Amino acid sequence: MAAWARAVRGLLLDVSGVLYDSGGDGGVPIAGSVEAVRRVKASGLKLRFCTNETQATREKFVKKLQGMGFDISVDEVTAPAPAACRILKERSLRPHLLVHNDLVPEFAEIDKANPNCVVIGDAAENFTYANLNEAFRVLIGMEKPVLISLGRGRYYKETDGLKLDVGAYMKALEYACDVQAEVVGKPAKMFFESALAEMGVPPQQAIMIGDDIVNDVGGAQRCGMRALQVRTGKYRPCDENHPHVKPDAYVNNLAEAVDVILQQL
Amino acid sequence: MAAWARAVRGLLLDVSGVLYDSGGDGGVPIAGSVEAVRRVKASGLKLRFCTNETQATREKFVKKLQGMGFDISVDEVTAPAPAACRILKERSLRPHLLVHNDLVPEFAEIDKANPNCVVIGDAAENFTYANLNEAFRVLIGMEKPVLISLGRGRYYKETDGLKLDVGAYMKALEYACDVQAEVVGKPAKMFFESALAEMGVPPQQAIMIGDDIVNDVGGAQRCGMRALQVRTGKYRPCDENHPHVKPDAYVNNLAEAVDVILQQL
Repeated sequence: MAAWARAVRGLLLDVSGVLYDSGGDGGVPIAGSVEAVRRVKASGLKLRFCTNETQATREKFVKKLQGMGFDISVDEVTAPAPAACRILKERSLRPHLLVHNDLVPEFAEIDKANPNCVVIGDAAENFTYANLNEAFRVLIGMEKPVLISLGRGRYYKETDGLKLDVGAYMKALEYACDVQAEVVGKPAKMFFESALAEMGVPPQQAIMIGDDIVNDVGGAQRCGMRALQVRTGKYRPCDENHPHVKPDAYVNNLAEAVDVILQQL
Repeated sequence: MAAWARAVRGLLLDVSGVLYDSGGDGGVPIAGSVEAVRRVKASGLKLRFCTNETQATREKFVKKLQGMGFDISVDEVTAPAPAACRILKERSLRPHLLVHNDLVPEFAEIDKANPNCVVIGDAAENFTYANLNEAFRVLIGMEKPVLISLGRGRYYKETDGLKLDVGAYMKALEYACDVQAEVVGKPAKMFFESALAEMGVPPQQAIMIGDDIVNDVGGAQRCGMRALQVRTGKYRPCDENHPHVKPDAYVNNLAEAVDVILQQL
């Protein structure tokens, strides 16, 4: 942490694994994170939540976080589903959805009859053998299969252990259909850029804080941002030897990140 | 079909999609295939069945085919599970199995306590969200994850439609754990070579007949064999424009293949 930290005007925060650990029971806040978000807001820094969360609508997701005590509102959240809806409309794509039941309302206004693409999100329990075969058949039946993936995460941590994320299932469909998915969400450059635009801060003055070495840290750095990795959530010690990505700094958790950043101001 | 066909001394036959179409009801023989196998045996050509079938033990699989009228015995079949068992024993590997229930008896003599590798086969209905997460956790918990895949097929055809094959799920785990699977089964060179050795015919005098352009045709050709693609099973017209693999000939089905080959003798 050095000169660049003094130039910071805005923070992008990953949510799962940074603010809280998700899980079947809704999850639990990570110690110090509720207070850390409050301190960022009080500091005058701009703040945006940049998540690949696709297990719920933004409304439901934000309500859950508010229930844990976080100061967060729907219009502060950049998430893949609304970004995907913009793309579907622009390109007149009618999706077959392989997503979590709770995400379906985000696509309420999208025509889904006679699908000409597949949209895959973190469908969790909906990743059944039957549903994967169905999505596969829709794709393989197209002359030029179009697969849109809401993120490309490998796995994430819930309170009862690590779970495969959407990226693993995306790879399965990519391989089966010999197609490359279009990724909406981190680490797609366009996704970070829209979060920055919504915050009104250029990448050189923004810091991303996340637990995912590739999708949070690597993705943000490729956009010209600085990025910190927290040692919470899906962080694993071997991340510190990643062959391609090196965070601008490590911090034990969000609270420590905010301590350090606010000290520089 | 030309001079090389006159040199043929042995045939390797893929089974699913060549002899029969599999399906929930056990499957149905492809027209003319029962008689075609009988004619090959009567001709004096050597014959071996070379399958990536991993939904049943060889005993059960052969019994099903016999029930359809095929002249086939267990010791004529080269299949991935017995090959995998040899590897597990040689390397003192103790597998966590993600396979079809009916394949489990093939691993009866293998120590499975405290697993130090994952073996994945075409688990079909066992490809549940929970089972995939469990296999993933076993792998990601290893210092150097070892993933052994019984085949790498993309998909296959059953009577009720196309289904994702083991290769798709292998890719999901490969991506999530950043590991490369060791493939046992077609198109692995060692697998074709052991089938040829068991038949006692060199690759130059053998013809592979299969419905899978990559795993049957491409794999066999890389071993120095000639290979025919049948237009049954998972064959799709676009296979004829495959960017890398070109069969030595196309035939409508196994019966036609046998007609043409026996005419050359």
